[in-house]
Amino acid sequence: MIQAGIVGGTGYTGVELLRLLVLHRDVEITVVTSRSDDGLRVDALYPNLRGQLDLCFTKPELETLANCDVVFFATPNGTAMKMAEALLTRGVKVIDLSADFRITDVAEWSKWYGMEHACPDLIKDAVYGLPEINRSKIAQANLIACPGCYPTATQLGFLPLIENNLIDTQHLIADVKSGVSGAGRSAQVSALMSETGESFKAYAAAGHRHLPEIKQGLSAVAKKEVGLTFVPHLVPMIRGIHATLYATFINKDAQGLQTLYEQRYADEPFVDVLPTGVHPDTRNVRGSNHCQIAVLTPQESDTVVVLSVIDNLVKGAAGQAVQNMNLMFGFNETQGLQTIALYP
Amino acid sequence: MIQAGIVGGTGYTGVELLRLLVLHRDVEITVVTSRSDDGLRVDALYPNLRGQLDLCFTKPELETLANCDVVFFATPNGTAMKMAEALLTRGVKVIDLSADFRITDVAEWSKWYGMEHACPDLIKDAVYGLPEINRSKIAQANLIACPGCYPTATQLGFLPLIENNLIDTQHLIADVKSGVSGAGRSAQVSALMSETGESFKAYAAAGHRHLPEIKQGLSAVAKKEVGLTFVPHLVPMIRGIHATLYATFINKDAQGLQTLYEQRYADEPFVDVLPTGVHPDTRNVRGSNHCQIAVLTPQESDTVVVLSVIDNLVKGAAGQAVQNMNLMFGFNETQGLQTIALYP
Amino acid sequence: MIQAGIVGGTGYTGVELLRLLVLHRDVEITVVTSRSDDGLRVDALYPNLRGQLDLCFTKPELETLANCDVVFFATPNGTAMKMAEALLTRGVKVIDLSADFRITDVAEWSKWYGMEHACPDLIKDAVYGLPEINRSKIAQANLIACPGCYPTATQLGFLPLIENNLIDTQHLIADVKSGVSGAGRSAQVSALMSETGESFKAYAAAGHRHLPEIKQGLSAVAKKEVGLTFVPHLVPMIRGIHATLYATFINKDAQGLQTLYEQRYADEPFVDVLPTGVHPDTRNVRGSNHCQIAVLTPQESDTVVVLSVIDNLVKGAAGQAVQNMNLMFGFNETQGLQTIALYP
Amino acid sequence: MIQAGIVGGTGYTGVELLRLLVLHRDVEITVVTSRSDDGLRVDALYPNLRGQLDLCFTKPELETLANCDVVFFATPNGTAMKMAEALLTRGVKVIDLSADFRITDVAEWSKWYGMEHACPDLIKDAVYGLPEINRSKIAQANLIACPGCYPTATQLGFLPLIENNLIDTQHLIADVKSGVSGAGRSAQVSALMSETGESFKAYAAAGHRHLPEIKQGLSAVAKKEVGLTFVPHLVPMIRGIHATLYATFINKDAQGLQTLYEQRYADEPFVDVLPTGVHPDTRNVRGSNHCQIAVLTPQESDTVVVLSVIDNLVKGAAGQAVQNMNLMFGFNETQGLQTIALYP
Repeated sequence: MIQAGIVGGTGYTGVELLRLLVLHRDVEITVVTSRSDDGLRVDALYPNLRGQLDLCFTKPELETLANCDVVFFATPNGTAMKMAEALLTRGVKVIDLSADFRITDVAEWSKWYGMEHACPDLIKDAVYGLPEINRSKIAQANLIACPGCYPTATQLGFLPLIENNLIDTQHLIADVKSGVSGAGRSAQVSALMSETGESFKAYAAAGHRHLPEIKQGLSAVAKKEVGLTFVPHLVPMIRGIHATLYATFINKDAQGLQTLYEQRYADEPFVDVLPTGVHPDTRNVRGSNHCQIAVLTPQESDTVVVLSVIDNLVKGAAGQAVQNMNLMFGFNETQGLQTIALYP
Repeated sequence: MIQAGIVGGTGYTGVELLRLLVLHRDVEITVVTSRSDDGLRVDALYPNLRGQLDLCFTKPELETLANCDVVFFATPNGTAMKMAEALLTRGVKVIDLSADFRITDVAEWSKWYGMEHACPDLIKDAVYGLPEINRSKIAQANLIACPGCYPTATQLGFLPLIENNLIDTQHLIADVKSGVSGAGRSAQVSALMSETGESFKAYAAAGHRHLPEIKQGLSAVAKKEVGLTFVPHLVPMIRGIHATLYATFINKDAQGLQTLYEQRYADEPFVDVLPTGVHPDTRNVRGSNHCQIAVLTPQESDTVVVLSVIDNLVKGAAGQAVQNMNLMFGFNETQGLQTIALYP
Repeated sequence: MIQAGIVGGTGYTGVELLRLLVLHRDVEITVVTSRSDDGLRVDALYPNLRGQLDLCFTKPELETLANCDVVFFATPNGTAMKMAEALLTRGVKVIDLSADFRITDVAEWSKWYGMEHACPDLIKDAVYGLPEINRSKIAQANLIACPGCYPTATQLGFLPLIENNLIDTQHLIADVKSGVSGAGRSAQVSALMSETGESFKAYAAAGHRHLPEIKQGLSAVAKKEVGLTFVPHLVPMIRGIHATLYATFINKDAQGLQTLYEQRYADEPFVDVLPTGVHPDTRNVRGSNHCQIAVLTPQESDTVVVLSVIDNLVKGAAGQAVQNMNLMFGFNETQGLQTIALYP
Repeated sequence: MIQAGIVGGTGYTGVELLRLLVLHRDVEITVVTSRSDDGLRVDALYPNLRGQLDLCFTKPELETLANCDVVFFATPNGTAMKMAEALLTRGVKVIDLSADFRITDVAEWSKWYGMEHACPDLIKDAVYGLPEINRSKIAQANLIACPGCYPTATQLGFLPLIENNLIDTQHLIADVKSGVSGAGRSAQVSALMSETGESFKAYAAAGHRHLPEIKQGLSAVAKKEVGLTFVPHLVPMIRGIHATLYATFINKDAQGLQTLYEQRYADEPFVDVLPTGVHPDTRNVRGSNHCQIAVLTPQESDTVVVLSVIDNLVKGAAGQAVQNMNLMFGFNETQGLQTIALYP
């Protein structure tokens, strides 16, 4: 039984971590911090946790957090980088759900996130927490940079094609759609139900912060800089990401495409390649840590289409963080993540 | 480990039973029947169950079902009453989620449900499966009539007031709102998203099938026939019931109201009385078996208001069925029902 | 052709006024004010108005507004009361969509709205803008207090019963449900789609600001103080109010109830009594100025139920304001209000 | 004042035609047919039309329809082709909202629509009713094939690029998203709110009926067969289509792209090119006949992205049909189509 702390427990990734960890048999949650809600019972803010967690929010303090075996940062960008080093020095493993340690090029990070990095030297020690690529490194890591939600769905979708050098990596297209919980739990007009309900739009089409992260990940696999057009959209629903990915074959192997995907992910507990002809639906994975993927070549053209869905708060955030923790502490990788999506 | 069968596994209460039973440590699901989908893999219809259940739908056949320890009927009204007797004779316990055994007055049942009852003699043997009233009887029962969704939310809300003779039971008002999954998984124009989305309406205000069930339950507690106005409404969401209940005090005990409710439900694992001033929200119990209740007397009038929420498919159907099963087989009452509501 | 100004044009009632007035043949919009968006094109904030309105937001200034024939206040509570007098003095008619002039008892107003009233002497000159009660007074008025959304739906529903002395007015119950646009266009966590979508709850059950307004209106008709329990609820949709009203007969005239309602509203262009057995649906009036009403006595009890729906932003705000303007300036009462609700 | 008939008035495009034509000053609706609802008042099915239309549904009969000046077919595919010829012979103009006359290659049509064409000789007389391409032909036509919803949004988005030979037309990508009203008003499980709410998915990715229509239209402009990958998606909302279009430049003219689009559509009353940097939102055009378009080249790559939104029931169906009618009868093209989208 390890002791876990959560810094920034009042946002949506924070409460999702709580939902998962409360039922995790090997974890005891000992600290949940919030500057704004210091002293408030956690279940007063999140009544879904009534009867499950007997804790109050506390201010984030090093001494308290240092008693944990692992600390999750479910904070806005720019917080984890200020506290991670002190915790690591004290022997605490750190899992950061924000973007602070995702981008290895510090200048690029600063450009997209609009701030100086507080501990650039630590970035090289961070392991990018996508188990489907980095499982063994994760198991050895002390500092994890959890992937973003769009990057998770997009990379898992493109991976088999790029690994096998089947597509033109200069013209990748990722048309990705997200539910509004991706905007977080902060007071903003643009995320009001009156503004987002019953409507659909693209946003940040000219350039979104997850673009460099996806390009970095795919370029590492391609072993050269990839070209990617990434257009995120907002769906009038709360949870879920659906990536629709397009690429042009350079080595067409359409016959074997289904097999290729099934074999690539055969041993992955959380990536599920759907049978030919089945379309994934975000509800299939709502509340679960699974990614469901379909691959096809419509009309036998030389364009390949990949459909990839995740729950942005689970496999796209808190669930993946727990999966990383399981690997880091030698627990069963699926421990605490066996929930089944609600249907309907 | 008991063996369980589900008759009518293609509807929403059926798949919800599957979601709960698949993770129940003491239950093995051995049969899931469907006339229309005979031969189809269950997870082809319900992709949220992929990797969790290796079964195909089969035709409902007595011989197969008779091998089960318990059979759940998640069927339309009128099916369980034709099969229950044969199963009971074979020593199988039966939990009926439909309305076939809920109403003790057969003539009344026929009036509301529009058919002759196939086994009227069996009705008296059925135990009404509301554990908060009938726990010990349930533990001894072989045939359970699971309460309807509206009746569960309404009865749990009114119970403490009526048990303590505090209100005028001739003028009870239940203004109840339900998500659209209550209409079931059948092809009907009125339940299309284009018909129900972004709109709100009352329906069946002149008389709904759950009216006699609620009146029967409350009259038994009041020890006299109660008068009830029950108006159901349709909410543009999928899951959840919110009952807003009104009554007039005859013995006002407003000071002690909160305590009265807390004490009444202190030992109930699935009824949660909220602190004074907190309003329940259906999302707090989405996917969970809990009922959350608030009670208040606005403006210090002699009208008492009770707010009661459940998930119509869990505490209002499949979850309550599992709770009954746990009691019948001597399992921990909360076994398999510890799921936490998704938030957001 | 009159000239109209709108103070506070960036909220939902403001943009709804714009939608209606832009197509009103007798009105030219000359000023739309906003402190925060001064200088911005109106159609940059509201792209649905592109090509329809060639104006920028300006700061609210008396000199500019004084050139208008009528000024609408679509402002938060507390703004109109500071500017109305100066405009009235300059001969400008004022239509206030906020609550500043709705309550005749200043102390009561201050209690519910939490501020001192800036011009208490003016309150007695304000006419409560519910045309179904005050049509002739409205035609003579210079200052209109537009009713709130809940009060409009509730009063129109109860009116015929109280006018005819048919019900016990000490125990009125209004169980009312509203879409989230009623919360306005301001940055607040509680109105996020992630917080309000797929869920339903009551709020302010202990006392809502519209309670004294409804009581004042109904008491005036009853010619005595009425007793009212009013519980508002939040529906996961954007527009629409559904009032479900309950009362006990003292003089039962159930046979004639339908006729009573039809006759009461026979000459009302915007109140539509539905045929017996039909339930109103908020979508029937979405975007239109109509109120649809049904009345029934379920199970032939002595409890009468009234179902009343409006669009909170139209008949509950901007549409009613335009209806008042039409009466004040002698236009056809329905001018500019002939829009038909979108279906689906 | 012309007389108009609507065949198939009970579906969503039918009622949308009614909403628009009821307020059209030059049109009198004289017949609305429905086999299934023969004899029923139109406003009993569609309460949003109460007080606006005093008609009952009648069976579709040639004699009655032949008295009309124009007949709209808002019917399932395969109906208009059986009745059009007789009406045209009688001098009635026909506007078909279904797919019967959209595809000039009869064999191709039969392949996608799964039936024999009843009047193949008539196809060549039909004018494809996209005014932005065929305005003058429409004005002379007696038989109009109204474009599908996806084809309208997609073609208007690609048109300026293809007309100016700027892109590789062999690898066009259309990632298009639609609200559920596109599935029509028919009883089907897949369109239930419980099935479509709070979820997002692609469907018919391997080949959708609108694919040949879009290819035919774009190929005519390109003057050669284009290559198109078209993936439709279902959005959990009722109305709206958002097309996200991708192509690779062969002649990059990114600097002039905005100007190119603005000039192409400068005289189009219903196509609105948004300012640089603004993303269209489907709600901007909900209930209106407008198409809003944005064009950009993210990250200065050689991939161009076009965002194009319409209301599938208006510019994608009924509104476009009325626009065609206005052109055919010499009315102002915008007559009856000046409605403003509801916001919020």
